[in-house]
Amino acid sequence: MSWMTPKRAFIGAAAAEGGTKLNAFDNALLKLGIGNVNLVKLSSVIPAHIEWMEKVHDVPIGMLLPTVYAHIESDEPGMTISAALGVGISEGNEGGLIYEYSGYCTKEEAEEMVRKMVEEGFRVRGWKLKEFRVASAEITVKDKPAAVVAAVVMFPY
Amino acid sequence: MSWMTPKRAFIGAAAAEGGTKLNAFDNALLKLGIGNVNLVKLSSVIPAHIEWMEKVHDVPIGMLLPTVYAHIESDEPGMTISAALGVGISEGNEGGLIYEYSGYCTKEEAEEMVRKMVEEGFRVRGWKLKEFRVASAEITVKDKPAAVVAAVVMFPY
Amino acid sequence: MSWMTPKRAFIGAAAAEGGTKLNAFDNALLKLGIGNVNLVKLSSVIPAHIEWMEKVHDVPIGMLLPTVYAHIESDEPGMTISAALGVGISEGNEGGLIYEYSGYCTKEEAEEMVRKMVEEGFRVRGWKLKEFRVASAEITVKDKPAAVVAAVVMFPY
Repeated sequence: MSWMTPKRAFIGAAAAEGGTKLNAFDNALLKLGIGNVNLVKLSSVIPAHIEWMEKVHDVPIGMLLPTVYAHIESDEPGMTISAALGVGISEGNEGGLIYEYSGYCTKEEAEEMVRKMVEEGFRVRGWKLKEFRVASAEITVKDKPAAVVAAVVMFPY
Repeated sequence: MSWMTPKRAFIGAAAAEGGTKLNAFDNALLKLGIGNVNLVKLSSVIPAHIEWMEKVHDVPIGMLLPTVYAHIESDEPGMTISAALGVGISEGNEGGLIYEYSGYCTKEEAEEMVRKMVEEGFRVRGWKLKEFRVASAEITVKDKPAAVVAAVVMFPY
Repeated sequence: MSWMTPKRAFIGAAAAEGGTKLNAFDNALLKLGIGNVNLVKLSSVIPAHIEWMEKVHDVPIGMLLPTVYAHIESDEPGMTISAALGVGISEGNEGGLIYEYSGYCTKEEAEEMVRKMVEEGFRVRGWKLKEFRVASAEITVKDKPAAVVAAVVMFPY
């Protein structure tokens, strides 16, 4: 077990409304199952031999989890916001890359942005892209503040 | 002892001036007793059974401490800036939530914002709010850059 | 070995272009030898008795490394962007301070900014500045997005 080089990871995305932008963000994290932990923001590399989890299992409240995340909040009615994370996994699962995008755009546009970034990241490293995963969320603001978040959460065990 | 799930925490807020915005922020951290450590920014959950400290005891220079903080700097004379953290503790000290706010406003306005956010955070989780703590600071900019910071610093032991 | 109080550090700066701002930032990190690790952003204090490394040796892909960094990206042709970190080391290597600056300016301007901030940081602490180090990078945007980054990466061993 090591906080330094994570062993497992979870990827997901969610959208939510809330009474404030921060509560909306909090509610989106709760939907992902990571509203009761402490996210420590990372730049964006997947360790070798990572194992992917289908869901976030019970973790102690307030545990520090290294997380790559993209998010955006808005309280402008009618606007659509999206966040996406694109994950590229190398051949042999020797490592991977995560790129993030969030903005006033559709989910498809955010997904397309991160796909291109993953491809460039692999190309400049001379790595071979074996698998591409994407997590994205979109919401159109109505009468309450809204948030979208896409996250890769890493676990030490 | 575990960096992953902190055991103790300190809450405080301070305002300061400095030669630059970053030095003003640095000076505010020094007032709080956390100017000589490395803050690792967290999203905002209080682990279960946390013990609150009255002050930050001597810690090694450069130690990495997980910290939730809100801050804002300004060099516009006449403007008032404030930062606040609101902490809600659940019944039985089974965990808590921290919400942050900073902006061009009074301390009271920042405190009111974080109070509302804590209440919503507890409501959506179905948690019972036993105790509310707030740390806030306010400063009106004069002729030098100024900063306010509110922080919850967590300790592994 | 301790993630909490780093033992060694590397300082460097680089500029790069990329297909997007994020890829340009990624390419600058690759030039520094830290493109395949996870940076955990720190506020900015150098632990006592730190040992400086000439280069980043092989580290596992995706390892979490505490890092102080300044960066800026731009896609506005003709604009010059710079990032600098200034490091002050105290007498007896009892600790040090890092200040960051990035903006639309020359490398020399960014260096001058961090030098002043380091001097003020030492003055307010009553520390004696024995050594000043600076890492900076500058790039003028042409037809592709560009990024500059200055970083102090810390190692647990």
